[in-house]
Amino acid sequence: MNRRVAVAAVELFGEKGWASFSIEAVARRAGVGKASVYLRWSDKEELLAEALAMRIGPISDVDTGTVRGDLVELVRQLLDLYAGDHGNAALRLSLEARSIPRLAERHEEMTQAQVLAARAVVRRGIRRGELPEATSVTYLLDALCGGAMNHALTLPAAVRASLSQEGIAEYARRFVDFVLASVLVDTA
Amino acid sequence: MNRRVAVAAVELFGEKGWASFSIEAVARRAGVGKASVYLRWSDKEELLAEALAMRIGPISDVDTGTVRGDLVELVRQLLDLYAGDHGNAALRLSLEARSIPRLAERHEEMTQAQVLAARAVVRRGIRRGELPEATSVTYLLDALCGGAMNHALTLPAAVRASLSQEGIAEYARRFVDFVLASVLVDTA
Repeated sequence: MNRRVAVAAVELFGEKGWASFSIEAVARRAGVGKASVYLRWSDKEELLAEALAMRIGPISDVDTGTVRGDLVELVRQLLDLYAGDHGNAALRLSLEARSIPRLAERHEEMTQAQVLAARAVVRRGIRRGELPEATSVTYLLDALCGGAMNHALTLPAAVRASLSQEGIAEYARRFVDFVLASVLVDTA
Repeated sequence: MNRRVAVAAVELFGEKGWASFSIEAVARRAGVGKASVYLRWSDKEELLAEALAMRIGPISDVDTGTVRGDLVELVRQLLDLYAGDHGNAALRLSLEARSIPRLAERHEEMTQAQVLAARAVVRRGIRRGELPEATSVTYLLDALCGGAMNHALTLPAAVRASLSQEGIAEYARRFVDFVLASVLVDTA
């Protein structure tokens, strides 16, 4: 897929959503002839699904040696996804994919990658004796993935635009420490 | 505001988003003459902002006597918001409000209500000796509000449609217990 077409498709979807998505608008934005885009994709679902696959990579599991390090890396990737250049498109995919079959598949792949990564981190944490056997992958993902999402959504536009990799890593470290530690006062 | 117009406006926004939102489409969906809607609202931003204010109430702080009870109530309200009838509209508001001034105001009011409620819960928890002085309201809200959001977004449509108040309360209790307790093994 032509990189300009992919970028235009993902940006357009991120800004306007599925209801305003059309092959004509993508061609116009990419500055290419619409006939050439139609020649390759007759279906706008296919076009967007392929563009999203090209521009938004899945979350991957990284074994850093500690559960804290693994989760910081996971949150770092999630925040990079939701607050990064294609953050709006990723958030819209979560919201709009349900009703559009090809996008639902793409969304399911992304969600599965998150679940697999979180499950691998938890499994290693249990094996290392860092986490209790009964640790819930679901609640952990709700807290971490939701936290990254909520943080990206509540960042003022100017802060979001100038967010550095160091700023993202700093948030990831502090937020993971918050979730891992008990929030309650230790009365032991 | 006419209830049918308000419901139609919020549902339309939830399904299609701002890019497809128009006074004509709202009137059609509500089954009222578009002239009568135009007579009252010349501006679609005003119409949607008023409809959202009418249909989506702010999160409120409830003092249950314990920090756990207060947070369970907060998560219950958040999940009711994001997984309820107008959940898609609430999620879209978080995503799309930034670029539309009147909606940005409405979104800011909702976010402020969440921050005030969380701050009040944390302040009481510190006074009661349940929470440490340094408890971060920001991370707590990212975890709880984000958790409710992520849970609503990952629920299969059929489960979401049949979600009972008891199911919502059950999730709220378990998720708050997860966030309040230390995730790590207690090696003390």
